[in-house]
Amino acid sequence: MTKEILVVGSAALDSVETIHGSTTDAAGGSAIHFSMSASRFAPVRIVAVVGTDFPEEYLELLHNHNVNTEELIKTAGNTFRWHGRYDQNFKSAETLSTCLNVFENFSPELSEQAKNCSSLFLANIDPDIQYDVLKQMKKPEITACDTMNYWIKLKNDSLKKLLREVDILFINDEEARQLTGIFNVITAARKMLTCGPSVIIVKRGDAGSLLVTGDELIPFPAWPVEKVVDPTGAGDTFGGAFMGCLTREGNWKDISVLKKAMAYATVLSSFNVEDFSVRRTSRVTAEEVEARFRKYVGNLKV
Amino acid sequence: MTKEILVVGSAALDSVETIHGSTTDAAGGSAIHFSMSASRFAPVRIVAVVGTDFPEEYLELLHNHNVNTEELIKTAGNTFRWHGRYDQNFKSAETLSTCLNVFENFSPELSEQAKNCSSLFLANIDPDIQYDVLKQMKKPEITACDTMNYWIKLKNDSLKKLLREVDILFINDEEARQLTGIFNVITAARKMLTCGPSVIIVKRGDAGSLLVTGDELIPFPAWPVEKVVDPTGAGDTFGGAFMGCLTREGNWKDISVLKKAMAYATVLSSFNVEDFSVRRTSRVTAEEVEARFRKYVGNLKV
Repeated sequence: MTKEILVVGSAALDSVETIHGSTTDAAGGSAIHFSMSASRFAPVRIVAVVGTDFPEEYLELLHNHNVNTEELIKTAGNTFRWHGRYDQNFKSAETLSTCLNVFENFSPELSEQAKNCSSLFLANIDPDIQYDVLKQMKKPEITACDTMNYWIKLKNDSLKKLLREVDILFINDEEARQLTGIFNVITAARKMLTCGPSVIIVKRGDAGSLLVTGDELIPFPAWPVEKVVDPTGAGDTFGGAFMGCLTREGNWKDISVLKKAMAYATVLSSFNVEDFSVRRTSRVTAEEVEARFRKYVGNLKV
Repeated sequence: MTKEILVVGSAALDSVETIHGSTTDAAGGSAIHFSMSASRFAPVRIVAVVGTDFPEEYLELLHNHNVNTEELIKTAGNTFRWHGRYDQNFKSAETLSTCLNVFENFSPELSEQAKNCSSLFLANIDPDIQYDVLKQMKKPEITACDTMNYWIKLKNDSLKKLLREVDILFINDEEARQLTGIFNVITAARKMLTCGPSVIIVKRGDAGSLLVTGDELIPFPAWPVEKVVDPTGAGDTFGGAFMGCLTREGNWKDISVLKKAMAYATVLSSFNVEDFSVRRTSRVTAEEVEARFRKYVGNLKV
């Protein structure tokens, strides 16, 4: 068993418009945002697919950040592209266009090294593919998944089957309501605990996040960001730091480790939204991360 | 100077409908919700007006909770009545009817004892009346006010004049945007610091609250309430515990005192929403309050 995090998800070229500007064909996708965050805590191996148009500099960015790209396949065709726009509220994006391109036939076959990773993060993709990847793993110590409204609606049975076998579910409040049919997010989170995962993380944007286990229900405030430039990937950045911290610390079922992971996840995702794409998370220094972490933890001390 | 909190605001008979039931002519109004919460920490003197229909049992409730009602005037006519309805979201109430009744001519003349109180809370009423009351005070050590969208729009100059002379402003996120014309609540809070108050408290409902001073910007999560029955008065209950704690502790500009007050305010307002009117805040025991406070503070320890 290698102390390494395997992430399976999308690698994309994102074009995003917000009140603070725009970007075209920037590095994006769940697996890339996750990797840039998780790799600050533990080695990461990314499983994804890109087209021949995927810029070499984005691969170098991953290499320079401790991310193993042996299973980031480059194949004939164009990379998955997403074009979206946020209003000043930044609550949810309006999708202007989505081109799946080479991502349409994504069906990962894991290498032996990948199968032996100690942590697995199944980013938001078809739950049948998430399940297939989970089953390829040898004996991961920590498994987690994300999902979205589309799969909850169209592949509910597949998602439920997956949930029975993962440790941690990352979900936002709207998805939690949709998945359970329960309006109150706390009751919804408790319900989801009966579906398989022993830890539920409810992501609530600038309203913070909830850590829910069989014994604990702990709300965390968001780090107050004065100028949100682009929230794309904030959830995956959150998940990356969370999984990275658990993997680094070990003993991940300990509530104090889970709380520490929530704090780092909050901090990394706050950096992510401060600029487009992975610009801020790729440049932020370890010292800046530690300083914001200490301030966040200090603020919470009453 | 008497270590006592003076609160000036409304006393009302509230009729409220929510998904969990309804209540008719229950004890309500900003000054009453504030008093029931603040009086757990320090003596409270309430300045308000009610009609001859105001039930004696509500006055007894206040007496039994350490609230001095010498300046709660009973006058000919009916008590201020509000009838509102919340949907399952509980974000804001739909007002079905408002009858100001005797509250229409509310123009408080403070007694000598009232003028000598050490803390003043100007609940959400006409800013001209708030200012008039402020000017009647001898030399209060802590002054605070609340307001609402109606006054921000219709009495903006009066409100600005008041703000130049109060220490603490309680406001919700929508009102903060409206008052400053700034969408980001953090930037809005910083702007409000330049208008007079040295402490801004932004109330965000189930998204928690923000404590903003010249040096600090600290977000607090809401206590996770699984079954919200009636959020009416939660903001005044929050303000009550906050002012009560500052008054009890003294040295209120100390950031550790302000943080403690935020935690107690969060806890008391969480009890408030668990039942209609002041039912829960009047019955909750000191032990229950302390237990939830300790749990809240413990949860925040990373």
